[in-house]
Amino acid sequence: MVIQLSPAGAVRAAALALLLAAAPSFAATPAVPVRALDALPSWREGPVKRAILTYVERVSRPGSADYVPAAERIATFDNDGTLWPENPLPFQMLYALDTLRERVKQEPTLRDDPMVQAALGGDLARLLEGPRHEGLLRVLALTHAGMTTEEFRASVQRWLATARHPRYGRPYDQLAYQPMLELLRHLRANGFRTFIVSGGGADFLRVWSERVYGIPPEQVVGSTALTRFELRDGEPVLVKTTNHLFVDDKAGKPVGIHAFIGRRPIAAFGNSDGDLQMLQFTTMANSRPSFGLLVHHTDARREYAYDAHPTSSGKLVEALQQAPKRGWVVVDMAKDWAVLFPKP
Amino acid sequence: MVIQLSPAGAVRAAALALLLAAAPSFAATPAVPVRALDALPSWREGPVKRAILTYVERVSRPGSADYVPAAERIATFDNDGTLWPENPLPFQMLYALDTLRERVKQEPTLRDDPMVQAALGGDLARLLEGPRHEGLLRVLALTHAGMTTEEFRASVQRWLATARHPRYGRPYDQLAYQPMLELLRHLRANGFRTFIVSGGGADFLRVWSERVYGIPPEQVVGSTALTRFELRDGEPVLVKTTNHLFVDDKAGKPVGIHAFIGRRPIAAFGNSDGDLQMLQFTTMANSRPSFGLLVHHTDARREYAYDAHPTSSGKLVEALQQAPKRGWVVVDMAKDWAVLFPKP
Repeated sequence: MVIQLSPAGAVRAAALALLLAAAPSFAATPAVPVRALDALPSWREGPVKRAILTYVERVSRPGSADYVPAAERIATFDNDGTLWPENPLPFQMLYALDTLRERVKQEPTLRDDPMVQAALGGDLARLLEGPRHEGLLRVLALTHAGMTTEEFRASVQRWLATARHPRYGRPYDQLAYQPMLELLRHLRANGFRTFIVSGGGADFLRVWSERVYGIPPEQVVGSTALTRFELRDGEPVLVKTTNHLFVDDKAGKPVGIHAFIGRRPIAAFGNSDGDLQMLQFTTMANSRPSFGLLVHHTDARREYAYDAHPTSSGKLVEALQQAPKRGWVVVDMAKDWAVLFPKP
Repeated sequence: MVIQLSPAGAVRAAALALLLAAAPSFAATPAVPVRALDALPSWREGPVKRAILTYVERVSRPGSADYVPAAERIATFDNDGTLWPENPLPFQMLYALDTLRERVKQEPTLRDDPMVQAALGGDLARLLEGPRHEGLLRVLALTHAGMTTEEFRASVQRWLATARHPRYGRPYDQLAYQPMLELLRHLRANGFRTFIVSGGGADFLRVWSERVYGIPPEQVVGSTALTRFELRDGEPVLVKTTNHLFVDDKAGKPVGIHAFIGRRPIAAFGNSDGDLQMLQFTTMANSRPSFGLLVHHTDARREYAYDAHPTSSGKLVEALQQAPKRGWVVVDMAKDWAVLFPKP
């Protein structure tokens, strides 16, 4: 059903897809079906791309037997490893380590803290020791609490403007996967609302999710802790704390989806066993036609290759085993993605 | 600037306003300005109605000096006492008591529980004793936990279909204030997104908020507790618990707004000191033109009259004192609202 295009045609189609995504009312005009323009030019032709396009068309075309009303077209995306890389470490962890280094320059006594020493020495195993990962929590408390939400936002913005990924030499927010950016746009052009459902911190994601993914703050579900409301010289502020921590990962993902969205998604996208329950919640015994997809990192040449033995987070074993039984689509990154990152 | 209409004209205008609200693309056509049709027919002419219409026009008309981009046009509404009554008790409490009565019929030994006795005997003061209101929590645990989210939803739907308000003899979901329904529609017709920010339970509100207020589940911020994800015979379910309770009231309201919406509202609507911090957060030192409104229950004849001495919840003392200083608009229900409830 997808029209094959010459390379020049593909560029034009991509430009058109972009335009359409920016003008959803035009995209909705039945005379110009989005799929005919190749909405996913960075995806190679094959069963994975076909499965995505077919599913989106099935649930969004008026008159389709599997039509789903737009209000219920909720798609949820994991972030680390699904929308951008999670190596050599999840980027928020790199932010925490960079920020901690700065903190220690201001407050040298922090070096006496064994967990700060472990973090600065790169001993991440030490930080993850114990059932509650006390070391990691200590680093998060030092870098993600005690400041106002506005101060935190400014700090993340400064970091994004200056830090560079060690392998790609680019700002982290220029490493969103181009195929996934196209998929997000294609879903939205077909009446879906796209949500992030990430183990990462909601406050961290919300600083840049709208600019990078087109996902507004109110559609970001992430790990959260409570803030504290204060009036400071007539100005209301929210101070970040580590109280009442909610970790939006594994079985916490459907819990977070229910708490924040209050509806069951019909499509879910992940890359690790941390996304297993989100995919189960989305696709098992759902009265609506549903879609589950896993990004399998198979591309050591252009990115990273891992599943059972990840270098950082993102183990993919059980979800991969369940994929055939549950009908989840598995992306072979090396094979299915023609392009990984947007042009600089 | 508002065209005065004859009573017959007002009815036609109301019908038109409804039509416009249902067809936002038509409402956005500049040739037919919404305000010219009297978008708020149930509000009596006067400074309150004028303040609302002027504010909405200021921030939403392209070219206005105070124009706010649509993405930031976030309006938050308290529920109990603001969108529907909170007497003789908040309606969710009446649901809990009705449900408890049913539960006790099935499990008579529950009568031995002193808190169940207090609840069934109407001794609400007893339930609220202690800093953590253990009695109330016990009643909530019995009526709002231990079942799946779908079972809870079905139970609330059954209750709404059968229970009647003791004074008005109507189903509770037919007691939304007509002037506030018009206000919600008017805001949405002008590019606002409307959110509930309530001390009530999000799961309770989400059952009917879309049908009654046009507010979808993902725009409901309320008190929440975590659910527990389970697979039961291949079906994913979420079991309601009372763990990790977050009370979205008083200083919890800006905290909830930040956690769930992640943006500062530009307009907030409440009726009690439980909404004080939400109005402060919305209107104080906001770089955007903002709007705060309090519904003052002054109408013993048609509804209830209370502020410092409420019969149930909803004390209004400090917020009312701060209103002139902060520029918040105060609705005098008896004077400003021509109609209270939708026609049956």
